[in-house]
Amino acid sequence: MNWQFILESVYADVKPVLGEGRVADYIPALATADPGAFGMSAVMLNGDCFSVGASDTRFSIQSISKVFSLALALRNAGDTLWDDVGHEPSGTTFNSIVQLERENGRPRNPFINAGALVVTDSIISQYGRDRALQEILAFIDKAAGSAGVSVNKTVAASEETWGDRNRSLAYFMKSFGTLKNLPTDVLNTYFHQCAIEMTTASMAHAGLFLANDGIDPISGSRFATHEQVNRINALMLTCGHYDMSGDFACRVGLPGKSGVGGGILAVAPGKGVIAVWSPALNQAGNSHAGTLALEFFSDRADLNLF
Amino acid sequence: MNWQFILESVYADVKPVLGEGRVADYIPALATADPGAFGMSAVMLNGDCFSVGASDTRFSIQSISKVFSLALALRNAGDTLWDDVGHEPSGTTFNSIVQLERENGRPRNPFINAGALVVTDSIISQYGRDRALQEILAFIDKAAGSAGVSVNKTVAASEETWGDRNRSLAYFMKSFGTLKNLPTDVLNTYFHQCAIEMTTASMAHAGLFLANDGIDPISGSRFATHEQVNRINALMLTCGHYDMSGDFACRVGLPGKSGVGGGILAVAPGKGVIAVWSPALNQAGNSHAGTLALEFFSDRADLNLF
Amino acid sequence: MNWQFILESVYADVKPVLGEGRVADYIPALATADPGAFGMSAVMLNGDCFSVGASDTRFSIQSISKVFSLALALRNAGDTLWDDVGHEPSGTTFNSIVQLERENGRPRNPFINAGALVVTDSIISQYGRDRALQEILAFIDKAAGSAGVSVNKTVAASEETWGDRNRSLAYFMKSFGTLKNLPTDVLNTYFHQCAIEMTTASMAHAGLFLANDGIDPISGSRFATHEQVNRINALMLTCGHYDMSGDFACRVGLPGKSGVGGGILAVAPGKGVIAVWSPALNQAGNSHAGTLALEFFSDRADLNLF
Amino acid sequence: MNWQFILESVYADVKPVLGEGRVADYIPALATADPGAFGMSAVMLNGDCFSVGASDTRFSIQSISKVFSLALALRNAGDTLWDDVGHEPSGTTFNSIVQLERENGRPRNPFINAGALVVTDSIISQYGRDRALQEILAFIDKAAGSAGVSVNKTVAASEETWGDRNRSLAYFMKSFGTLKNLPTDVLNTYFHQCAIEMTTASMAHAGLFLANDGIDPISGSRFATHEQVNRINALMLTCGHYDMSGDFACRVGLPGKSGVGGGILAVAPGKGVIAVWSPALNQAGNSHAGTLALEFFSDRADLNLF
Repeated sequence: MNWQFILESVYADVKPVLGEGRVADYIPALATADPGAFGMSAVMLNGDCFSVGASDTRFSIQSISKVFSLALALRNAGDTLWDDVGHEPSGTTFNSIVQLERENGRPRNPFINAGALVVTDSIISQYGRDRALQEILAFIDKAAGSAGVSVNKTVAASEETWGDRNRSLAYFMKSFGTLKNLPTDVLNTYFHQCAIEMTTASMAHAGLFLANDGIDPISGSRFATHEQVNRINALMLTCGHYDMSGDFACRVGLPGKSGVGGGILAVAPGKGVIAVWSPALNQAGNSHAGTLALEFFSDRADLNLF
Repeated sequence: MNWQFILESVYADVKPVLGEGRVADYIPALATADPGAFGMSAVMLNGDCFSVGASDTRFSIQSISKVFSLALALRNAGDTLWDDVGHEPSGTTFNSIVQLERENGRPRNPFINAGALVVTDSIISQYGRDRALQEILAFIDKAAGSAGVSVNKTVAASEETWGDRNRSLAYFMKSFGTLKNLPTDVLNTYFHQCAIEMTTASMAHAGLFLANDGIDPISGSRFATHEQVNRINALMLTCGHYDMSGDFACRVGLPGKSGVGGGILAVAPGKGVIAVWSPALNQAGNSHAGTLALEFFSDRADLNLF
Repeated sequence: MNWQFILESVYADVKPVLGEGRVADYIPALATADPGAFGMSAVMLNGDCFSVGASDTRFSIQSISKVFSLALALRNAGDTLWDDVGHEPSGTTFNSIVQLERENGRPRNPFINAGALVVTDSIISQYGRDRALQEILAFIDKAAGSAGVSVNKTVAASEETWGDRNRSLAYFMKSFGTLKNLPTDVLNTYFHQCAIEMTTASMAHAGLFLANDGIDPISGSRFATHEQVNRINALMLTCGHYDMSGDFACRVGLPGKSGVGGGILAVAPGKGVIAVWSPALNQAGNSHAGTLALEFFSDRADLNLF
Repeated sequence: MNWQFILESVYADVKPVLGEGRVADYIPALATADPGAFGMSAVMLNGDCFSVGASDTRFSIQSISKVFSLALALRNAGDTLWDDVGHEPSGTTFNSIVQLERENGRPRNPFINAGALVVTDSIISQYGRDRALQEILAFIDKAAGSAGVSVNKTVAASEETWGDRNRSLAYFMKSFGTLKNLPTDVLNTYFHQCAIEMTTASMAHAGLFLANDGIDPISGSRFATHEQVNRINALMLTCGHYDMSGDFACRVGLPGKSGVGGGILAVAPGKGVIAVWSPALNQAGNSHAGTLALEFFSDRADLNLF
């Protein structure tokens, strides 16, 4: 069925719930987002791009950045990355430190905060602290077809101001030797990486290599190997939505990664990518309308993997 | 590519590792299995069945029974089943009780032991304690095309003798009201259900409805709804291999469920089902050669979902 | 100062709070206790006994029985008892199973439920399942000067009916080999031991050997060695009030053991013993008025060890 | 019995075990201590001071400083201090963060590292970050009779270099609002406080107010109220030796606080204070010979509270 038609039907059907839930307020810079905003884009492997709503509005991608930093770190470090971070669901909340103490400072997977810090640490080991952020940005921007991805400095500053829990995770892992660089450098890069802004249109394009075995079908550039893509998608499916990953897998049936900014990136391997944004979150911290929209889209476009 | 040809190439390639690992010894009745045994069967949606090795040898399906009891319980109880058991990865070992205490006696998912006891409890609520086992057997036998599925009474007795950890889980949940029936009845049915024996050939057939939206394409019988199949497969992918579910998802990329008897059932939605058996286990308690064989098969038959 | 005078002043001062809090309702047989009831007795080493209130009313001693079963088990097993149970505070609630899983089925101390089951198990190993309860009763009765201690069969039956959490603890430890006897036998003895009834007057006498290096100064009988008494008192001080042991130590400054029946036994080494009973409990499950009365008594009789 | 005579007999009896165990090596500055060193001092309420061994050698008091900082913080903040730190045993290791996550960033007691950081934070709130250390030093020095207490800057620098686990605890609590001041300021004061050096002779004098209801009997100065002393001693008894507090209570029967520098301070209320130092530690991180010496001394001088 025509994806534009599906997008429009989905948009119509989620309109009644827009604004339900709560905008993230753990940092003031996110708390001002419009809870009723909604944008959604879908890109097919042939490059056709479809959108509805505020698909050209930039939003804070937050934890969705972890997908791209993971791809970049894997490209450089290869499987040695898994020495310092696992690839199993954690069964705990995104910022839990309990699992770290039980398992000697090695985070369960790259999508909980502790694991994402390990990934960023690996990127700093490769490029140095001064270039790391710029390389992450360049990676995403190239994947998005040079869409002009940028960092929102107000959000980055707010992350820094309210970043004590992440600092705690970083120093905890440093005490076990999991982090190789200075926690302050890792955190600085991480806070900025979380503050990257994109539109759903550019995000959908940026994720396209994950639906196409590592190659962006539009530019022809390779961003990851076949095996790396398999692993990244498997991790998104098992761990991409924190403590509701199982629920997302059951309802949407696609690898997906959410961010507290209200964005979700979903990958339909061999078919395309969908990006959605709506800032009001459900209790687990995932976009309420965004999750529902993906459930509808996956069902109507027959994308559910299961 | 021809699945029989792939099976044979896989069999040749795993032969060198047959016997590596340890046969389950938590109950004496399993400890006598031949660590070097190996059987594998694959069934396509059109009913074509292919096999290599000891595909007609009966083995103890153990935790793989949880997939079928879940399907049976869902058919009867519908979504009310999720009131008493979650659908999220647990992040802990299969017999952990820690998560239960933290979350008021509600197990994380139906594939950890505690969750499977809840599923069995639901079946007893439907059929009574005297018929529950027989209904589970009948369900599996029908799904397998009347293959003559049976319970190994020696294994069941051994489960009972060494079942104190499961008793502890059952009484713990009873104290929270999660179980509705007598723990002794739930445990008795559960111990027997774990002692069911099948061949890889019959198991592959039995799982076929999971690859075909709930309908066995050979008999035409419906065993589950489309939505239930989506959920069961999603659960197998996220939780089917205990603390190595993420690893299995990364390497094989298919919904799968393992048992300590050395069996693994893997589902390729829309394509077919593969069952493998080899009793020597890796550290996480999953068949060592079986996992490797599925990794090879998934890769060569291009079944990886990601 | 004269202890009778102090008892009367304490009684007068706690009267306004009698009935505040909640009577234990985890078993129906306890839920009918009068929340405003109060009895208190103090015995000096010279045998002088003082009382106020309902000091001749029998109440369910519940967990206070753990002190006497520990003394009996130590007399028989000596320090080998500590192979299966520790002597450290647990930092968790009385019926927590989390600590057991973390520490391979060995409970932290003899006063949490799991630890008390180990103690009872040791007594069964010594006397057999048929005599164990009778020996515990005989030990307490002799310590109390043949006061006619008895088991309330209604309470014992209620413990049994609502004993699933304790069953879970017992089977959990059995799976680790911590318990040597059948969990059903250990539980049966334990449920009856918790249902023992005494008056505050007889309980104060029964505890006197703990204030006198192991010898009841009235009868001259030895119930424990000097070293055993030191250890039992140290355990009461550090672990006798579950998650409020530190608070009791700060406020009362004496080794003490509480029970959910509303009783508390407090030992003033070298001076005497105080027993109090008032069924309304505070949030931590300790007698509200009883704790306050002991705080007043300890202060006014200058008994605080610190 | 004459305390000097007892000290000498104790010294003779522990000589065979001197050097058994391991010197703390978590920071390089402590790893160079002589494992066979031993000093011990005992002061009676009348001011008589007795010593054996290296009682005039300065050693790093480490966690024993937590007793004095607690007394100072209580003097200023009173019972409001307990809003941010509990007074219950933790059941976990000294640097565990698990309990903090379970209980919303409020540490269990002032003697685990997290709790001690809260105490130091309270002192900074009172005096400011620039004066806090100096006030702690002045408090201890005055309690010790102006013994010239000092900070070892090499040890303080080493604490700082290897302080990532403590940084993690501090930022964790900051994220919950438990700490009121900058974590860097709290940590800086804390690292220096741990690096304070004293002799056993001056430490025994410094603790004397804890044996005398808050007043140093030599100088007549009051350092704490009666109630505060009761609480500090109760905390030392229940929580003073981390995960071996129960063992110390059983064996020594006195409030005590150990440090990884090999020192232990023990209080005999109404009688006197004993300080011992020997750097080789047992598995729980407490002085091996020091604990044994206190067990002998407590027994021979009949000081065991129980």
